[in-house]
Amino acid sequence: MRKNLELKDYVAGIKAGDIAILSRAITLVESKRAEHQKLARELIQEIMPLTGKSHRIGISGSPGVGKSSFIETFGKYLTSKGLKLAVLAIDPSSQITGGSILGDKTRMAELSIDPNCFIRPSPSGKSLGGVAAKTWESLLLCEAFGFDVVLVETVGVGQSETTVARLVDFFLLLMQPGGGDDLQGIKRGIMEIADLICVNKADGENMNQAKLAKRNYENAVHILRVDSMPKVMLCSAIKKTGLEDIWNEIESFYIKQKGALEKKRAKNLGLWIKDMILEKIQNDFESDDLIKIAMEENHQKVLNQQKNILEAVDELYLKFKGKK
Amino acid sequence: MRKNLELKDYVAGIKAGDIAILSRAITLVESKRAEHQKLARELIQEIMPLTGKSHRIGISGSPGVGKSSFIETFGKYLTSKGLKLAVLAIDPSSQITGGSILGDKTRMAELSIDPNCFIRPSPSGKSLGGVAAKTWESLLLCEAFGFDVVLVETVGVGQSETTVARLVDFFLLLMQPGGGDDLQGIKRGIMEIADLICVNKADGENMNQAKLAKRNYENAVHILRVDSMPKVMLCSAIKKTGLEDIWNEIESFYIKQKGALEKKRAKNLGLWIKDMILEKIQNDFESDDLIKIAMEENHQKVLNQQKNILEAVDELYLKFKGKK
Repeated sequence: MRKNLELKDYVAGIKAGDIAILSRAITLVESKRAEHQKLARELIQEIMPLTGKSHRIGISGSPGVGKSSFIETFGKYLTSKGLKLAVLAIDPSSQITGGSILGDKTRMAELSIDPNCFIRPSPSGKSLGGVAAKTWESLLLCEAFGFDVVLVETVGVGQSETTVARLVDFFLLLMQPGGGDDLQGIKRGIMEIADLICVNKADGENMNQAKLAKRNYENAVHILRVDSMPKVMLCSAIKKTGLEDIWNEIESFYIKQKGALEKKRAKNLGLWIKDMILEKIQNDFESDDLIKIAMEENHQKVLNQQKNILEAVDELYLKFKGKK
Repeated sequence: MRKNLELKDYVAGIKAGDIAILSRAITLVESKRAEHQKLARELIQEIMPLTGKSHRIGISGSPGVGKSSFIETFGKYLTSKGLKLAVLAIDPSSQITGGSILGDKTRMAELSIDPNCFIRPSPSGKSLGGVAAKTWESLLLCEAFGFDVVLVETVGVGQSETTVARLVDFFLLLMQPGGGDDLQGIKRGIMEIADLICVNKADGENMNQAKLAKRNYENAVHILRVDSMPKVMLCSAIKKTGLEDIWNEIESFYIKQKGALEKKRAKNLGLWIKDMILEKIQNDFESDDLIKIAMEENHQKVLNQQKNILEAVDELYLKFKGKK
């Protein structure tokens, strides 16, 4: 039985670079017990002045794209440069097993025993918002601890990318060679938020396919993006190629964003708060049984033209607002 | 001064194919006066049994793509086949001038004097939902009147496409040759809802550019779409080419959808109702001054870590729900 730590123990441990204490601090943040939550909040407040200095990088890609191998290879590349790296994961689906398969240390055999790397699986939780909020606080703890780079990994399906994009500064999307049929799992909006797209598995027999995919993604990005145009690069986790180009691209992003970064982070946080509230309201609307019944009734009446569509909308809206 | 029409006059006129009466019926539907709205509702209910038989086709494209010329040429092609065509427009921006530039008869000189064609500009209105709802009732009137094809034109910017997609069966997106820089005005989501993409201006010196654009759009669609894959075709409004292929594609859609169409229409209507309600709620949230202030306060507190992000979300959510 480990002795209970007090606030000052956590703070001192994090400042001293004690990885076991960092680990326990994240467990504290993830705990649902009220006294833990209270202590966690005090801890976060205490370490806030130490945060803000790391590169916060989101990474996503559909299953099968080789995300674990890429993180292993890219992570080793970073630590070989003398950088300290933390890998966090967001996977709301992990609620099913109660723990995450993402961030599992067995997936990244070499990286997980690297003294300059810290890997932490996704917290469990019922809602994406809740899981992301805990990952956010873990990210702050890792920053305070002194990691140079924090990678936040996500599963590449569902809503999690747009949420992760709010947490990080830079979003890297991993793709694989092959036309697009193999991308069925990917959420449509991801291509629109990526700061960099990397076609993995660009090696051996896949090389031509990978080059073709690169061109296709470049065209797609050109059509889709009206703001900044993310580069599309080739890499191979197996052959350890493309890593330097990727890192240079990230570094140049931070140089370009210097000064604007604080504002971008604050803005993202605001958008994240708004997203979470609107998501709650929408869930509320969609899961309310009375609204469901009223919706069905009104739908039928509009179909039969017993009711005008604007009338139906107003009635349902007022019903939801609780004014009727 | 025209004499006031009664319900039976409108119904008889529409059944008799009196275009002047159809025009006045649409004016009635668009009127904001309470007695007009009451009469309009009775009229729509009366003509409902006559609706449902036309091809409802949405058409969009950014400014400069040659939409008016295309509708003129394609419209003439349809009427030359003996089909009766109505062209409606949705343009919420027309509130600024109080009337719409879209659907303006001077844009389509030949089509506007074609006895088998009826062109109607966008209704004016403050909200997209309101404008679309009036266009919806105009569409029902046109169907009851006996038009074979109803084209609903939209501006190709903003939210109007997703709304129009709920009103129609088939959505045609017009594009132009050239890489993508010229697409800056287009809404990102449009490519995802199109049933057919046509590259216009595929003539003369533009031909190679148009072919290249076709390939690029095909690739983009391949990457983006996980459901059905819309075809990409070439056409030229000036040279009157590609029209038959487009019409065949639309016809084959209706053959394939036969049987499923009624369900699709009902489902779209339900989604449209839901969209409008959620849009109202979100507008409500974003325009509430007290929420705005509370949002700003909470954002700051989260930034300074005086408040946990989930706490802030819950507080704002409850405030909006009026429970706090």
